[in-house]
Amino acid sequence: MPDGIAAPTDVEELSRALGAGGWIDGASDDAAPYLTDWSGQFTGKAVGIARPTDVAGVQAVMRYAKAQGLGVVPQGGHTGLVGGGTPFANGGVVVLSLKRMNRVRSVDPANYTMVAEAGVILVEAQQAALAHDRFFPLSLGAEGSCTIGGNLSTNAGGVNVVRYGNARELVLGLEVVLPDGEVWNGLRALRKDNTGYHLKHLFLGAEGTLGVITAAALKLFPKPTKTASAWAATPSIEHALQLLDIVRAETGDAVETSELITRTLVDTVVEKMDGVRDPLADDSPFYVLIEVSTTRRSEGGEPPEALLEAALGQAFEAGAATNAVIAQSEQQRADFWKIRELAPEALQRIGPRISWDVTLPISALPQFYAAAAKKMAETAPHVGFYGFGHMGDGNLHYLAASDDIKDLRALLDRTLYDLVAEFDGSFSAEHGIGQKRVEELERYKSPVEYRLMQALKQTLDPDGRMNPGKVVHA
Amino acid sequence: MPDGIAAPTDVEELSRALGAGGWIDGASDDAAPYLTDWSGQFTGKAVGIARPTDVAGVQAVMRYAKAQGLGVVPQGGHTGLVGGGTPFANGGVVVLSLKRMNRVRSVDPANYTMVAEAGVILVEAQQAALAHDRFFPLSLGAEGSCTIGGNLSTNAGGVNVVRYGNARELVLGLEVVLPDGEVWNGLRALRKDNTGYHLKHLFLGAEGTLGVITAAALKLFPKPTKTASAWAATPSIEHALQLLDIVRAETGDAVETSELITRTLVDTVVEKMDGVRDPLADDSPFYVLIEVSTTRRSEGGEPPEALLEAALGQAFEAGAATNAVIAQSEQQRADFWKIRELAPEALQRIGPRISWDVTLPISALPQFYAAAAKKMAETAPHVGFYGFGHMGDGNLHYLAASDDIKDLRALLDRTLYDLVAEFDGSFSAEHGIGQKRVEELERYKSPVEYRLMQALKQTLDPDGRMNPGKVVHA
Repeated sequence: MPDGIAAPTDVEELSRALGAGGWIDGASDDAAPYLTDWSGQFTGKAVGIARPTDVAGVQAVMRYAKAQGLGVVPQGGHTGLVGGGTPFANGGVVVLSLKRMNRVRSVDPANYTMVAEAGVILVEAQQAALAHDRFFPLSLGAEGSCTIGGNLSTNAGGVNVVRYGNARELVLGLEVVLPDGEVWNGLRALRKDNTGYHLKHLFLGAEGTLGVITAAALKLFPKPTKTASAWAATPSIEHALQLLDIVRAETGDAVETSELITRTLVDTVVEKMDGVRDPLADDSPFYVLIEVSTTRRSEGGEPPEALLEAALGQAFEAGAATNAVIAQSEQQRADFWKIRELAPEALQRIGPRISWDVTLPISALPQFYAAAAKKMAETAPHVGFYGFGHMGDGNLHYLAASDDIKDLRALLDRTLYDLVAEFDGSFSAEHGIGQKRVEELERYKSPVEYRLMQALKQTLDPDGRMNPGKVVHA
Repeated sequence: MPDGIAAPTDVEELSRALGAGGWIDGASDDAAPYLTDWSGQFTGKAVGIARPTDVAGVQAVMRYAKAQGLGVVPQGGHTGLVGGGTPFANGGVVVLSLKRMNRVRSVDPANYTMVAEAGVILVEAQQAALAHDRFFPLSLGAEGSCTIGGNLSTNAGGVNVVRYGNARELVLGLEVVLPDGEVWNGLRALRKDNTGYHLKHLFLGAEGTLGVITAAALKLFPKPTKTASAWAATPSIEHALQLLDIVRAETGDAVETSELITRTLVDTVVEKMDGVRDPLADDSPFYVLIEVSTTRRSEGGEPPEALLEAALGQAFEAGAATNAVIAQSEQQRADFWKIRELAPEALQRIGPRISWDVTLPISALPQFYAAAAKKMAETAPHVGFYGFGHMGDGNLHYLAASDDIKDLRALLDRTLYDLVAEFDGSFSAEHGIGQKRVEELERYKSPVEYRLMQALKQTLDPDGRMNPGKVVHA
């Protein structure tokens, strides 16, 4: 639908514009997966689900919504954890699912870029890059279901941010349908471009409240050819940070991932889950799962295992590690990851759980962790608290499990987040705001910052059409 | 000056608020360096030069300007090439020099961050990081005079963007004084923080048109301990890109720099400048200066020279390089760089010159280069054209020299930029818009994008006080 053409005047016209399967009535059974998120935490209502296959279809939805005075809730894989893609119970919105807009438009190996539409599943984007001997590094638990559009709209993080940055850092250009239905074609695939304000950063991480990301020019990297994994015991978080520092330097900053896990959590996973092996049955309070990779294609040179072993040798000498094992097979590497990946499920078996997703300055992690352990135990002495995290980013996933945990949520949220604020941290590292953390955003941002965010919302979406009620109060 | 305190009502009061040496009358001789830029291209007038030493001083300037209806022109090292920090001839502004606000507030090695004020000279920021065994990678020709505030406000690029990104990518948080004199303290030093819109990206690269950056939390990296440099001959730009691809992969993506230089330019530099040695006196049309580094602190392992040599071996086999020399000493390395660095001066000796700063998708460089050579020669057959560039970023510095070059500027600008637009490139890779490229911004941006930029300007600076007339028309 080119600019200047009128909006669809009724739902039949919109439905025709979207083609076969493009419109699902909000009251039908088929609408259910779009109205309740993956985790089952959030459920809402919508007039209907629009499933365009191209930019013109997205434009038609925006114009229809404008004409009808409806809100628009953009949605990707619906795997977010804060309800950003789920409508509220009061309805009055169209859910705009981007899942059928799912073409990889191009891969340009010499430019180390690809252009992918919003509905491309993350793992498919990764594979498209690999097929051209390139690497798209974004990687997270939901990668088999989440979409590029959702990843970018939420500025997804994941396990290798220490090396490659967040989703935001992986984007060179965007194509966006604005609230009024106009298209901003900012799909530039340039590494340097200082021509005015960088509009892409408005839409990246805005959770669909300022416009609809329909495609992106993504940065690619040389493909890792070999990865080495170690599971190392370390006496404290200070020592874990020293270990990371040594391995970063000694391997030429080739650390892909650095996951911190407590002894308590290892014990819990080993106890509660089947088929889990404890890589180091010693008595260290903390462990680090650390991986380094190389992109070398030819034979010869130092393999990453040798690099990692040499680095760990330096760490032993410095007292930063007390014990370590390097994976000798893919199976052993998978065993390391199993502990990390099964942690949430293992805690679930203790009782209902809640989890937090905070970041601190990396250097503040030791003090923060000690202070949080003390404060949370004082607040709820009968509850078990657990921590693991992407250490290299200062990102701590902090968890609690007990039968009455739901009743304690508000109190524990407030206790932890107040402490995070004292340490100049963030109450939402990767998961965003959505509908779940709207109050926290208002509480913890300075009035100046909140007012600036409101001004941006008002400027870009003056009718408050985009994902109404999410992120920032209009 | 805390919020709520009234603006200085006259210049004496402002001068007192700024302390000794804080105010220079615009008509005095001392004002001259602030009114003409480093290159001598731009000269203007101002009521005075304000030189605050702290945030409160910047606030006082903003409030004074508001009360008096004056514009404010933020200025750093005054080394920009597009007149962004120089006032216009019609005056009516205060120049706000940040040079005295020059403290490194803190370095946090464990967090790999530092907080530097806007007036810190780039080379001093680099040194502050090195003193803590860390690396601040931003590096460019003007690093002995340019300031962090200017670097961030212009999103500076430089020689190692291929590895570390532009200035924008090196910033975690900002402190900004807004046009109304309020302070936004966004000095967070976090690697992940998904709490609402990322305001820092509004001010980064905005050339002081939306607010005044007063300090920044900057990302640091492990310190490179050894660097290897090669000067390689390659038969075409396609082959040069293949060479870069091979070296990136074979060295674990450790390429710090990859400068493309033409045979013609090497010959010109050798002929016109004293003491320049041609590293490879063969007859290849293109050369690449490529460097890789390691951060390894301990002895042992593969030194970067060995890595680079192995990579070049692969490049020879693939036909991507035909000849190469690896620097055996710092002197030899300096000799390589001399050719690159003396290129602008060598051309100056042919005649007056103009230079362009464009980016293309890296994969489009070969075709673009051929098309530009043809088109520019057709447009001005008597003029010599020369190219060199940061190949890994697609950034081409294209130059022309002849006695009548000034008369041809408008025609050649238009010819080159039209071609850049055809190839989806950018007419300003690193240098920005300032006052020099305001018309190009309006010409080459889509109406949608230009309108969005205007809306941001209007929202953040409704009175049009900040750097009036620069970047985007209000």
